[in-house]
Amino acid sequence: MNIIPFPDRAEWPALLARPVQSTQQIEATVAPILEQVRSGGDAALIVLAQKFDKVDLSEGGLEVATSEIDAAEDQLSDELKSAIRQAYQNIRLFHERQTQPVEKIETMPGVTCWRKSVGIEKVGLYIPGGTAPLFSTVLMLGIPAQLAGCREIVLCTPSNNPAIYFAAKLVGVTKVFRIGGAQAIAAMAYGTESVPQVYKIFGPGNQYVTSAKMLVAKEGMAIDMPAGPSEVAVYADDSAIPAFVAADLLSQAEHGADSQVLLVSTSKKLITSVNLTLTTQLGKLSRQTLAAKALENSKMILVESQADAIDLLNAYAAEHLILSVENAETVAEQIINAGSIFLGNYTPESVGDYASGTNHTLPTNGFARAYSGVSLDSFVKKITIQHITPEGLQNVGPVVEAMAEAESLDAHKRAVSLRLASLAEANPV
Amino acid sequence: MNIIPFPDRAEWPALLARPVQSTQQIEATVAPILEQVRSGGDAALIVLAQKFDKVDLSEGGLEVATSEIDAAEDQLSDELKSAIRQAYQNIRLFHERQTQPVEKIETMPGVTCWRKSVGIEKVGLYIPGGTAPLFSTVLMLGIPAQLAGCREIVLCTPSNNPAIYFAAKLVGVTKVFRIGGAQAIAAMAYGTESVPQVYKIFGPGNQYVTSAKMLVAKEGMAIDMPAGPSEVAVYADDSAIPAFVAADLLSQAEHGADSQVLLVSTSKKLITSVNLTLTTQLGKLSRQTLAAKALENSKMILVESQADAIDLLNAYAAEHLILSVENAETVAEQIINAGSIFLGNYTPESVGDYASGTNHTLPTNGFARAYSGVSLDSFVKKITIQHITPEGLQNVGPVVEAMAEAESLDAHKRAVSLRLASLAEANPV
Repeated sequence: MNIIPFPDRAEWPALLARPVQSTQQIEATVAPILEQVRSGGDAALIVLAQKFDKVDLSEGGLEVATSEIDAAEDQLSDELKSAIRQAYQNIRLFHERQTQPVEKIETMPGVTCWRKSVGIEKVGLYIPGGTAPLFSTVLMLGIPAQLAGCREIVLCTPSNNPAIYFAAKLVGVTKVFRIGGAQAIAAMAYGTESVPQVYKIFGPGNQYVTSAKMLVAKEGMAIDMPAGPSEVAVYADDSAIPAFVAADLLSQAEHGADSQVLLVSTSKKLITSVNLTLTTQLGKLSRQTLAAKALENSKMILVESQADAIDLLNAYAAEHLILSVENAETVAEQIINAGSIFLGNYTPESVGDYASGTNHTLPTNGFARAYSGVSLDSFVKKITIQHITPEGLQNVGPVVEAMAEAESLDAHKRAVSLRLASLAEANPV
Repeated sequence: MNIIPFPDRAEWPALLARPVQSTQQIEATVAPILEQVRSGGDAALIVLAQKFDKVDLSEGGLEVATSEIDAAEDQLSDELKSAIRQAYQNIRLFHERQTQPVEKIETMPGVTCWRKSVGIEKVGLYIPGGTAPLFSTVLMLGIPAQLAGCREIVLCTPSNNPAIYFAAKLVGVTKVFRIGGAQAIAAMAYGTESVPQVYKIFGPGNQYVTSAKMLVAKEGMAIDMPAGPSEVAVYADDSAIPAFVAADLLSQAEHGADSQVLLVSTSKKLITSVNLTLTTQLGKLSRQTLAAKALENSKMILVESQADAIDLLNAYAAEHLILSVENAETVAEQIINAGSIFLGNYTPESVGDYASGTNHTLPTNGFARAYSGVSLDSFVKKITIQHITPEGLQNVGPVVEAMAEAESLDAHKRAVSLRLASLAEANPV
């Protein structure tokens, strides 16, 4: 990895910039696919599956049969099933506590306002195919959907991995479709004869899937968040164990050649040790080519002080931030931009990826400056409700009249004045 | 207004559809403006202000001087100032209670997870010019920004209305710029020499502003929500007072010719009475031409039963929903799609627009199916944090190892195994 000692603050933006992805060309490919599915429905999905995935969906159908989903359980080892069940429990427990109780607030006497959370009726989850069958993501998206009470939970995935089906059943997915790529996003955004139209779309994917999500979002479809390559930043001092740090950097790097890995430290000794053990550990990985590629673009930054480190980390806004420093919890309090933070030597990112309870769908690419990771909030709408008594209207009405008049909105004022007049008539002083 | 008696459910989608707005042409106008500001900065803003707003910003500067903002107070009547202060208090009280305390959750022994809310560092608010100076929207966006602790609150508005400046000062806006239109959105999205780049953009605007927001959102900029014309649905029975209902419909209709107004009732009598009084009241409005135009496209729908009414209202997903029915609160419990709900005869929408405490930036155009209105949540990110003790890792570690292996993510597994091995070595059984 490139070691950068004491960079000037003026250099930070360039150092911390993510590779810019040109989206125009991908959009030009994706937009016609969206249109094809919008106008062609199921038939278009079958043609596109043949074209891109070399799969014939005309026989087995687009939807995965319940019997196939039920049968998945028998294909998994007991060890894996019990691991998935434990992860399910932990994730469920953490997300359950995000439920917000209804609280009525009297802002003025007789003026009562509250909010209620309602699950989004229909949501769509996308799980990519590829080498890593991301059943963990089925849990991460499905559990909050289930807790929110979403009535229809649609899952599109080109993978037929039994662990994905097993997880889908656990979280109460209502329909599974063997559809992949941008066309899956289109199917859920517009609906087809088989695929229900949903109101919000979640999940990871390649650049085509991401582009499809951004394009349907431009039309008003809700999506979880914009996405970029996965990334980790580790801030470590001499209390960190170099082999652990190296293992954490590698567990990020193996995601793909475009993964972002950053190590920040005030200790030159630590940086040197990590760099050494990194090379040894890399040799032992099955995905070492991918990981090595990712490390080529990655950086180890030596900084003067903890204050510098914190500023730099806040400027970077990492998806995952590991704080392997002595005073980790104090440092965490000063972090204002990050997706998820991992404290100390025994909290590797991979535990958060699978089973600690937190969600692993997190803002990448600096989006943590404005976005949160997926949570129960992502699957509910909060509807505000208000009730005003006649007395309440007498209290708040004059405020509204004055403001509406100043905004030149007559009818807004009249809706109040008419009621106040009728109250005055009914109860003359 | 068009009265539609007992429409068949099959007709609902067409009846409830919002007018489709073709965005392509507007985008073609807006995209070059965004590019111009991105590359040209302040100079481009000055050129565009001259071109679109016939305003010369080269002399007075883009930023409104603090002295001008401070002077605004003296230009307002005491009545208006005290109304704005009261609204400020109510809105602040309601939004303050949306603060979520940090709660640490032990999902397994030794595995502790929590979330902390952090204000988005830099936010941008847009307030349009035009006939109605929307200082109320300054409160609705600025108060939660202030409560969230956003460090930089940028306001762009082509209006120099003193009430807007007064409200901006109340909510702690840090910088005000006299920039309007799509170019204001571009300035805040990309930053210029004068205008700070922000991380999330909020606020209403015309189709050009909306299009600019959607285009920068496609690039990853966070925005409050997609927008469409404002709308109200009123569900009324014979307990409703027809003159009040008519006044509420008109207070929506006066927003603009494209406003959507819908009345749903099981009572033909009520519908007839509202329709009559509507005509009389319309004649008294200063914005009657606009309102009359909006009413032309609006509908009164007679339904068979309360169950039908609720289904129809959920299918419509109104921005504002007034329930002027005897059992309003019970009905509200069955509403799953709406921006904000107003209960009973004395809760006109305009109170929520200004001063009850709820936010008036709400999802239009059916977006309430997936989106919530603006709240404190809109101005914070929730960062998850986790800490695992050595014992905790021994509990959760094997779960992670099994799942990572099944997802073929070696290095994820190794990050745990390495630590578990080191613990086993340190404490041999």
